Amino acid sequence: MARPLITFTSDFGLDDWFVGVVHGVIEQVCPDARVVDLTHTIPPGQIERAAFIVGAAAPDFPPGTVHLAVVDPGVGTERRALAVRAHRQLFVGPDNGVLDWAFADREAEAHALTDARYFRAPVSRTFHGRDVFAPVAAHLARGVPLASVGPRVRDPMRLTALVSHREDGALAGRITFIDRFGNALTNLRAEEIALAFPRVPEADLEVRVAGRRLRGIRQAYGDNTVGTLVAIMSSSGVLEVAQVGGDVADRLGIGVGDPVSVVIAAP
Amino acid sequence: MARPLITFTSDFGLDDWFVGVVHGVIEQVCPDARVVDLTHTIPPGQIERAAFIVGAAAPDFPPGTVHLAVVDPGVGTERRALAVRAHRQLFVGPDNGVLDWAFADREAEAHALTDARYFRAPVSRTFHGRDVFAPVAAHLARGVPLASVGPRVRDPMRLTALVSHREDGALAGRITFIDRFGNALTNLRAEEIALAFPRVPEADLEVRVAGRRLRGIRQAYGDNTVGTLVAIMSSSGVLEVAQVGGDVADRLGIGVGDPVSVVIAAP
Amino acid sequence: MARPLITFTSDFGLDDWFVGVVHGVIEQVCPDARVVDLTHTIPPGQIERAAFIVGAAAPDFPPGTVHLAVVDPGVGTERRALAVRAHRQLFVGPDNGVLDWAFADREAEAHALTDARYFRAPVSRTFHGRDVFAPVAAHLARGVPLASVGPRVRDPMRLTALVSHREDGALAGRITFIDRFGNALTNLRAEEIALAFPRVPEADLEVRVAGRRLRGIRQAYGDNTVGTLVAIMSSSGVLEVAQVGGDVADRLGIGVGDPVSVVIAAP
Repeated sequence: MARPLITFTSDFGLDDWFVGVVHGVIEQVCPDARVVDLTHTIPPGQIERAAFIVGAAAPDFPPGTVHLAVVDPGVGTERRALAVRAHRQLFVGPDNGVLDWAFADREAEAHALTDARYFRAPVSRTFHGRDVFAPVAAHLARGVPLASVGPRVRDPMRLTALVSHREDGALAGRITFIDRFGNALTNLRAEEIALAFPRVPEADLEVRVAGRRLRGIRQAYGDNTVGTLVAIMSSSGVLEVAQVGGDVADRLGIGVGDPVSVVIAAP
Repeated sequence: MARPLITFTSDFGLDDWFVGVVHGVIEQVCPDARVVDLTHTIPPGQIERAAFIVGAAAPDFPPGTVHLAVVDPGVGTERRALAVRAHRQLFVGPDNGVLDWAFADREAEAHALTDARYFRAPVSRTFHGRDVFAPVAAHLARGVPLASVGPRVRDPMRLTALVSHREDGALAGRITFIDRFGNALTNLRAEEIALAFPRVPEADLEVRVAGRRLRGIRQAYGDNTVGTLVAIMSSSGVLEVAQVGGDVADRLGIGVGDPVSVVIAAP
Repeated sequence: MARPLITFTSDFGLDDWFVGVVHGVIEQVCPDARVVDLTHTIPPGQIERAAFIVGAAAPDFPPGTVHLAVVDPGVGTERRALAVRAHRQLFVGPDNGVLDWAFADREAEAHALTDARYFRAPVSRTFHGRDVFAPVAAHLARGVPLASVGPRVRDPMRLTALVSHREDGALAGRITFIDRFGNALTNLRAEEIALAFPRVPEADLEVRVAGRRLRGIRQAYGDNTVGTLVAIMSSSGVLEVAQVGGDVADRLGIGVGDPVSVVIAAP
């Protein structure tokens, strides 16, 4: 059998000792686990960015993976701590929206972390990544049943939905992430576009962003001349605006939250 | 039995290949070991910062952990290389103060690294992280007895003690670290404060920093209004000055070395 | 037997989820493997820098190590993907020069990655790190024979050789890398210098860089006064120009591509 797999996302940065200590805690509870760092350079408190990253990466991990996500500006307050089973995986983090992607699964089952048997003792008031979330994630990776961590929660906090909508024949969405290469990822998923424009070939769609009209949704960056702006399907399954061999966010001056829409191109 | 655990702290940065090569060397000597990176972004040669991080993280690791700390501006000179048993753990690094926290244990036993059997051959003159410290750490993790690495050392280099002192009824210390979130950690430990002010409730103490007087030592950031300045006990057991939901270092313009004191609050 | 060892170098950065996903893919194909990150902060598309790092680090890893190097500006175009056996190790990456160091071994055997059995399905057009290179590297680490990944390739892309040359009694080369500490590494290897100046002691050579003449090739930074400029043999076996306790690149205003030469010093 494969050993347990835990991903770890946080805003702890790489300059202090926080990430290492969390690895050490997991090692002590579940020495068999393989811990994969997604990123720790989320700017402090940016819940939305962390939620996006967890949602973009999770589908690439196998069933049973435990995703630990700690962006927790409310540590020490009454905010709840959660473990969630969704998409055949497990998610552990504060109840502040950082686990939002889990709840895109309507079958998601969330539990509050209340059973102190699974915590590190004593629990500090300021570092629940170490004392609550990491040990619970490690116990779940070891096979502790989800229901044993605490009572069922039916009203988890969701992010203000950056949902797409139909508008005058267009499918309207927003930019949700600028990646390392300056590519602009949106909240428009492939399935959604297909549903909105049934039987329209991708080549006959038009993507509108920052006053530009990009003809067709392509398959790759690389088949075009360097500098060409393209709309493509990203490797994480959402519409992406890119510049071949360049940084589209920089070129168009676009960023997270800016509108993007898809329409049927004029013939 | 748990597999061997090695933490690794350095000023090697993340842009070159140095950290990876050290991991590779450890893997070859002790394939069972789990290596946990604490941080590698210590500014080149900042021994004090590395020493602080090792001391802040080590208590969260189990007995038997080997802490490898390589900030080594004197590589290639006659500075000694050390392995130390202290606090029921092991510490490996240059004799320049980076292992200072180990010597807070009066029972600390230090040995100079002289037995070339435990080195990588040939030993370069400029990369003892790879050739001396990492292989010795890995051999110790495998169970090589401490005394076999070389002769006992009784005069290790200590950092100029940033010790606290009593002054007109105050306990006076300094800021020793600004963390990712802008929190200011001090050298005043919880036990020391309790000893200095026996039977005084934490709520009746006052913390003075940068001309401010903070009433009480609290337990968490989160119970207060965003923007409130608080003195709290940090998750690593020292007095910390923080701003709820903000960056206190930036707000007060304070930094490492600045004075902090604790007094009994006026009634 | 030692478990499989895979190094991983990319320009993916540490802010997104790409590095983590590649670790997850390797874990699923070859759970026994130990993956060592060399660096992921190569500036996007800087093939030469990645090639240098792989070449500098590989000699420190044992025979059988698989080196995965993904700097792939041509992803989605017709550029080939390669696996190479060289120097008793394996190298996997795009055919764009990033594996250049492998081909310094005249016995290098390269194969194009064409057998989709070793890919992740479906293969995206934009993330071959996840879908092609990582799974092939993991399959090779598991023991899949090199020849089974695809047909032999005899014309891999090489980097425009930054080769050294003889010129009026001098051995002339260039700076190829500035490391974390500001040390300037060159393309002049120890063997090459020995060959060019047989029977001349290193103390009688002179290194010329940025209008300076440095007498002798030393063995270490540390034996000299802080601030001294020295030419030394680096830990990766090439001539290095350094400033004791300082940043020579900053001080002399030198960078990658600048000329360096070695001559016999005037008596």
